[in-house]
Amino acid sequence: MPLSTKTPLSEDLLRLVGQPASAIDTPSLVVDLDAMQRNLSRMAEFARKHDIRWRPHAKMHKSSALARLQMQAGAVGVCVQKTAEAEAMAAGGVTDIYISNEVVAPAKLARVAELAHRLAQAKGRLAIAVDSLEGVRRLANAMDDRRQGGPAAVIDVFVEIDVGQGRCGVPPGRQALELALEIRRHPPLRFAGLQAYHGRAQHLRTALARRDAIAQVVRDVLSTRQLIEREGIPVDLVTGAGTGSMVCEAASGVYGELQAGSFLFMDADYAANERDPAQPQFEHALFVKAQVMSSGPQHAVCDAGHKSHAIDSGLPRALTLDPTGELDYLNGGDEHGLLKPARGNQRVPRLDETVWLIPGHCDPTVNLHNHLVGVVGGLQQGRVDKIIRVDARGALT
Amino acid sequence: MPLSTKTPLSEDLLRLVGQPASAIDTPSLVVDLDAMQRNLSRMAEFARKHDIRWRPHAKMHKSSALARLQMQAGAVGVCVQKTAEAEAMAAGGVTDIYISNEVVAPAKLARVAELAHRLAQAKGRLAIAVDSLEGVRRLANAMDDRRQGGPAAVIDVFVEIDVGQGRCGVPPGRQALELALEIRRHPPLRFAGLQAYHGRAQHLRTALARRDAIAQVVRDVLSTRQLIEREGIPVDLVTGAGTGSMVCEAASGVYGELQAGSFLFMDADYAANERDPAQPQFEHALFVKAQVMSSGPQHAVCDAGHKSHAIDSGLPRALTLDPTGELDYLNGGDEHGLLKPARGNQRVPRLDETVWLIPGHCDPTVNLHNHLVGVVGGLQQGRVDKIIRVDARGALT
Repeated sequence: MPLSTKTPLSEDLLRLVGQPASAIDTPSLVVDLDAMQRNLSRMAEFARKHDIRWRPHAKMHKSSALARLQMQAGAVGVCVQKTAEAEAMAAGGVTDIYISNEVVAPAKLARVAELAHRLAQAKGRLAIAVDSLEGVRRLANAMDDRRQGGPAAVIDVFVEIDVGQGRCGVPPGRQALELALEIRRHPPLRFAGLQAYHGRAQHLRTALARRDAIAQVVRDVLSTRQLIEREGIPVDLVTGAGTGSMVCEAASGVYGELQAGSFLFMDADYAANERDPAQPQFEHALFVKAQVMSSGPQHAVCDAGHKSHAIDSGLPRALTLDPTGELDYLNGGDEHGLLKPARGNQRVPRLDETVWLIPGHCDPTVNLHNHLVGVVGGLQQGRVDKIIRVDARGALT
Repeated sequence: MPLSTKTPLSEDLLRLVGQPASAIDTPSLVVDLDAMQRNLSRMAEFARKHDIRWRPHAKMHKSSALARLQMQAGAVGVCVQKTAEAEAMAAGGVTDIYISNEVVAPAKLARVAELAHRLAQAKGRLAIAVDSLEGVRRLANAMDDRRQGGPAAVIDVFVEIDVGQGRCGVPPGRQALELALEIRRHPPLRFAGLQAYHGRAQHLRTALARRDAIAQVVRDVLSTRQLIEREGIPVDLVTGAGTGSMVCEAASGVYGELQAGSFLFMDADYAANERDPAQPQFEHALFVKAQVMSSGPQHAVCDAGHKSHAIDSGLPRALTLDPTGELDYLNGGDEHGLLKPARGNQRVPRLDETVWLIPGHCDPTVNLHNHLVGVVGGLQQGRVDKIIRVDARGALT
């Protein structure tokens, strides 16, 4: 069921381009394009320095326009988690897509096979992860079914190993080899390497803890790779890593591709990590613009609640760009945020004041919005440069 | 900036109507229409018995089709929290709309005034809440501006008092009277009564605690009403209440209108309340259909994470409809959910198994989806009866 996720941008919205940032309605998700561009350049430079491929996760920004921008800067393609995200990226002109996740439902695998063929015709490629023999066989069946009477396409298949996330993937070792062997029995499948992502390690707060966690990951990946290679099967690529740990995978000599996505926008949760000295200095580039719509003696209320930003990784930080002092953002429900003066500040914000919120977690925050408003020249004094469609928003299946 | 929030339903999606529930792709938000209809009938009967108006909150379902269904069952109209929600409801044919929230930005108030005029022309009405003198004056200005050269419309204005929520609203008493007096100075505004909603009371777990909390609310409302009436100003209506506390407001003799919305779908958080004996027995009618896409020795992984359901009020409950035993749903991130056997059950779900999740909180969960899949005849054996568009999804401004 490939659901169209395209929503036309309204004329009102497009008229915003060229206007001052102060004209942006609230709540809106706003991207500081200057900061985003600096993050992008730093990532590109980091990858060049380490001679490593980067394939940023589009589950974060869910925008084919941003995917293409990153590929122009040197990214080899995108990762996605869902078939529908892959379809949205392809519809937006992205031709090198990796579904870094398992797909086992036959109806979805038919869509995967269709997309593999369409991308092959466009001289692109589709890749996918597996963690079960049944999954490999179903994928092969879907590719065979799609091929009936048409040209053959090949899909790249990565074996996912569980390197500490405790979610999908087979344990490092023997089972990964079995899956690689099974993949090689099916002509429309190409064994492309190992998927090894340790999500929990991303938010270990100290750089040392992340280095220790990834050191163990690297040992597990290495032993698994050697096991497979001893059977004469080349392991072309190990892919994984997030914004929190990527310096470790990049330095490992084992990983060939980084999947970090959040570096582009950053969020309050990643900012709470101690920065590894080897890590580029990424900046906050994603903000919810909110406005005070009620103000009392003790607190003010802004018009952004958790329908405007995700709170799975904590509440947003309220950024004060004027010298009025610091604020705490407290949960006010679906549509409201409470603002209280904090850390010595005594002044409650007045009606109409603008507040910029740094979301706790960028990925699910972006997924709440149909579009991003891109600003150049700063949040306060800048102007709207473009509207970026979140064309994979709600692409769940 | 009235952003269009309409997304066309795809043909693939419409083809689902008439098919068995097993054909619904995952993850999808599914409504048990039989259970929903029972909830609706119980609410209508409850309101009739208490001779009280009901105006369910559309911030919950964000669907003009469901709003109209409720009005056919006896609801007087809808509440919304946002101007854009009001616009979406009006575009969907709802003509009696109450923005139970403050709007102070002049650009938004121009939209409010425009909508008030359009609804008046359709023999409907718009109402709004205020909690500041400045807000009243701006609203009056916007209505005056809109009236230039056209017919006059009047907007109903409720004074919001803070009865324990600690969010918007003036304290009960003197300030509310001042706002009522100010409203009456502006011909396009009609003082319609008091907005008094105690959100925090909804989730006090014992029925007694909720009764105690609302008893205090009623005292505050009553004293404020008397203060205003002593000035010769009639207080036509007190409006408020949620699904958790509505039996108390209904029995108060003070409230004339109930805003409860969640009763239609229910959620895990409301189900965790001790039911007040006076409260109708509302059933779960909203589910995320999910599927196991990875299965290991200790746990399985389903394809629904917190991009499919909100977790602000806790994780979803995993409902097992077959006799395989109970499961715990653990957070697996944006796109995954971990399923572990629980409470004596030993069996890990197999690949492909369907899991039905009861969301922790219905409102922000619905807001993640473009549509609801309506099923009749039960989740397991039933068939798809209709696709319900969530036409106010993402209507944030």
